[in-house]
Amino acid sequence: MRLHGYFRSSAAWRVRIALNLKGLAMEHAFHHLRHGGQRAPEYLRLNPQGLVPTLETDEGAVLTQSLAICEWLDETHPEPRLLPGSALERARNRAFALAIACDIHPVQNLKVLARLRAVPLDEAEVMGWARWVMQDGLAACEALLADVPGPFCFGQAPTLADLCLVPQLFNARRFGCDLQGLPRLLAAEAACNALPAFAQAAPDQQGDAE
Amino acid sequence: MRLHGYFRSSAAWRVRIALNLKGLAMEHAFHHLRHGGQRAPEYLRLNPQGLVPTLETDEGAVLTQSLAICEWLDETHPEPRLLPGSALERARNRAFALAIACDIHPVQNLKVLARLRAVPLDEAEVMGWARWVMQDGLAACEALLADVPGPFCFGQAPTLADLCLVPQLFNARRFGCDLQGLPRLLAAEAACNALPAFAQAAPDQQGDAE
Repeated sequence: MRLHGYFRSSAAWRVRIALNLKGLAMEHAFHHLRHGGQRAPEYLRLNPQGLVPTLETDEGAVLTQSLAICEWLDETHPEPRLLPGSALERARNRAFALAIACDIHPVQNLKVLARLRAVPLDEAEVMGWARWVMQDGLAACEALLADVPGPFCFGQAPTLADLCLVPQLFNARRFGCDLQGLPRLLAAEAACNALPAFAQAAPDQQGDAE
Repeated sequence: MRLHGYFRSSAAWRVRIALNLKGLAMEHAFHHLRHGGQRAPEYLRLNPQGLVPTLETDEGAVLTQSLAICEWLDETHPEPRLLPGSALERARNRAFALAIACDIHPVQNLKVLARLRAVPLDEAEVMGWARWVMQDGLAACEALLADVPGPFCFGQAPTLADLCLVPQLFNARRFGCDLQGLPRLLAAEAACNALPAFAQAAPDQQGDAE
């Protein structure tokens, strides 16, 4: 399998964790998002959105969108499960993942911040936008786990929710968010980062890290 | 089942279509998003994100995030399938749905546009932002279907992808987007809107329509 990514992309990072958890080998193709590598015509043929990640499977299929790739991995390589439990438990897990993947990450990604700079907003305003999105979104995520036992987001093992949480908290620190009100999320993050599958997926462990 | 929504919310609309396709009865609770109904303390206890939809099930469970709700409906009430086919077909279907649910809708929703107005951007700039998000995103969606037979997004029956497409195209028209380059998407939309499950889920058919 070949994963198209960028060391600091939260979405590519999710898929790296998923592949690591399932013990699947992958080849990496790196695209420098700040230099527009994702807009190259040959890459757009694979991924018309011009986003990472893209996964090319052993059979030559091309998959896009990190959560769709994770669901595919879970269906084709079921153990360990990224979405275990009952339909209701899976629904709550997906809802948490989507609260990050829909309502936080795309509203503060590189493309949106670049557009805000072009408005023009100054750098402090752009950083303020990103912090607003993340603080608000992560506070809701903390509340979504209020009655769910840890140490991971949903119980004793990492799941889809954790794959989304860890990159988002990394991003929140980069932008200077205040994480004090998020003890449950930080405890889940610590449990994740103690695992090699998470540690090896971190941005500074990637071949294109700066 | 009780669906918390708002007539014009794209995300609530997706779930209305899913419930209609599966022939499931629901009670509606309307929250006026422009008047802040979604920020009322009693609603935030159900949905800490302060977003619609929220689905309360017959068993008293509370589900949030439209795509998580649709996946739950598909697991608990399988026919007709919102995600039919092979794992690969499901992955492509989910990727299309997520290209809208992550990368278009949340970047031009009410909350983001309100924040842009507060920057302040003038109304023409805010509308320009929304059009930029939608034109760019929908062009990528058109490309994602280039080799997929219709008339619906993925073949002969409506699926999760169509549930996301129809509300997004409605929104695109509201904001004055140019839809000329999107023949495949428009054909799928026409196929959908010929079905009662879609027609009855439209904003102007809801109890809180204005």
